Amino acid sequence: MQGIYLENGTTQLKDLPTPAPKADEALVRVSMAGVCNTDLELMKGYMGFEGVLGHEFVGVVDQCSKGDWRGKRVCGEINFGCGTCGFCARGLERHCPNRTVLGILNQNGAFAESVVIPCANLISVPDTISDSAAVFVEPLAAAFEILEQVQIQPKDRVAVVGDGKLGLLICQVLLLTGCELTLTGKHESKLAIARSWGLEARNKDEVTEGEFDLVVEASGSAAGFATALELLRPRGTLVLKSTYAGKLELDAAPIVINEITVIGSRCGLFAPATRALARNQVRVDELVDAVFPFEQAAEALARAALPGTLKVLLQVNG
Amino acid sequence: MQGIYLENGTTQLKDLPTPAPKADEALVRVSMAGVCNTDLELMKGYMGFEGVLGHEFVGVVDQCSKGDWRGKRVCGEINFGCGTCGFCARGLERHCPNRTVLGILNQNGAFAESVVIPCANLISVPDTISDSAAVFVEPLAAAFEILEQVQIQPKDRVAVVGDGKLGLLICQVLLLTGCELTLTGKHESKLAIARSWGLEARNKDEVTEGEFDLVVEASGSAAGFATALELLRPRGTLVLKSTYAGKLELDAAPIVINEITVIGSRCGLFAPATRALARNQVRVDELVDAVFPFEQAAEALARAALPGTLKVLLQVNG
Repeated sequence: MQGIYLENGTTQLKDLPTPAPKADEALVRVSMAGVCNTDLELMKGYMGFEGVLGHEFVGVVDQCSKGDWRGKRVCGEINFGCGTCGFCARGLERHCPNRTVLGILNQNGAFAESVVIPCANLISVPDTISDSAAVFVEPLAAAFEILEQVQIQPKDRVAVVGDGKLGLLICQVLLLTGCELTLTGKHESKLAIARSWGLEARNKDEVTEGEFDLVVEASGSAAGFATALELLRPRGTLVLKSTYAGKLELDAAPIVINEITVIGSRCGLFAPATRALARNQVRVDELVDAVFPFEQAAEALARAALPGTLKVLLQVNG
Repeated sequence: MQGIYLENGTTQLKDLPTPAPKADEALVRVSMAGVCNTDLELMKGYMGFEGVLGHEFVGVVDQCSKGDWRGKRVCGEINFGCGTCGFCARGLERHCPNRTVLGILNQNGAFAESVVIPCANLISVPDTISDSAAVFVEPLAAAFEILEQVQIQPKDRVAVVGDGKLGLLICQVLLLTGCELTLTGKHESKLAIARSWGLEARNKDEVTEGEFDLVVEASGSAAGFATALELLRPRGTLVLKSTYAGKLELDAAPIVINEITVIGSRCGLFAPATRALARNQVRVDELVDAVFPFEQAAEALARAALPGTLKVLLQVNG
């Protein structure tokens, strides 16, 4: 099969042996996959990953000896837990110390014609969700993770820093809480998308400080972190929702002086994200920048790396 | 009166006019005061403070037109709120946006023969608490602040990073929760003090990673911050309990990947600290390094700045 293989900082579409699933695993024929900023960070050396990239996908189960998965349209949770540790026992495979992570840590990913996923990680995708929407299940789950970690009340004043695709997805999820919501970013076209959803969206230079109860940092930059701190009221909460490669230089004094709570936030459960898409509670269509055929993977990755690009999709199989 | 005045990065014992208290303020004759690391940071330029240093003290009320404070032995909460904003209304003068802070922000401090304190900030000190112990009310309140912000359960595995005077005070407070407690530091003599209190105390090089539920960073260094992150289990809590002057360069990836909660923690309420001292629930005598007469303030500050020094006290009025 063909797969986009990362090695020594460069990717190439490569002929690879089709993987063979074990008894409790499924072989999934990938229909469509999405490029995440984390993929771009991996290409710069983040996590020291080598192998097939890709962790956002939807596909059809090709082989599976367990249950009645064969032929089903699925997504797959990306953290493969050991299944026996205390974290796995509590449904926290995301924090299993022995986990592999699809296309990120010791596990070949979904930028390939086929991918192996443990049956326990499969999530059935209802027919009402299109392939291009289903690819958003993974990043949308990461956005829902915020609601697993903090309680956002309808009365809360919330801001999102960063108008990238993840920031916009986070806005969609936060809108469900009924909170007062403001997005700050630097791309007028993206701010306009957010405004069309009925939230306040402002250029980052217009918002210098504030009295927000909670701020989600989704820009991944030290400047975004500093802005987020300026926007918070004393004893407010800052959710870090980005891949941070390399060191972050920051002024810790305001965290202490204003007694800020900073919460790191990573992967979420797929079920709430799938439900929200099936219920048409979130809008992802506007977040698709372009769909590339699989053979043009190099162009797709280059496009995704351009500043301001929204979601780039790869049409892998038919 | 005489006071230790900070100006352009240098301190001197200076003749100053005795301040005149307003209607809702008291003039307190300072008996004894303590040197805090924050004083040393202020001398290096932190907060850009200019004025009389000192925020840890005990004294006797000399003038006060309100209540029956005159002649009473008191400490004083160091955050002077406006009394009218939403934070003050909720008992959070510590976060009043218009506050001054004793010896730290727009308010002359207690390294002086007399100091002005709002009556609302006075706390009566029981006779059973000695002057040298009462000076610890302020830093002990800062240690108790942790318990106002996070719930520590008796089953929790907790570590404190940094065996300085604040780290040791924090250990005293955390011992009250019944938690499993480990101190890591680099001064064998201080670790020995901690061990005599019945907690685990180890050299920082012996503790490289762990599965702690909560870690309190009390070293104030980037290295201490990194150590604290290594000690935490996924989804653990890191309490930042230090004055951080200047930028902190840190690797934010583990915060996100392990979904760590980082909580900044500053000043606390004086009442719990005073109660703990009156009830003999905490031990502070072992934390006194030396007592200097007020005239030797320069020597006292120099001594406090030596690495490894515990609490240096100033005997101001006999």
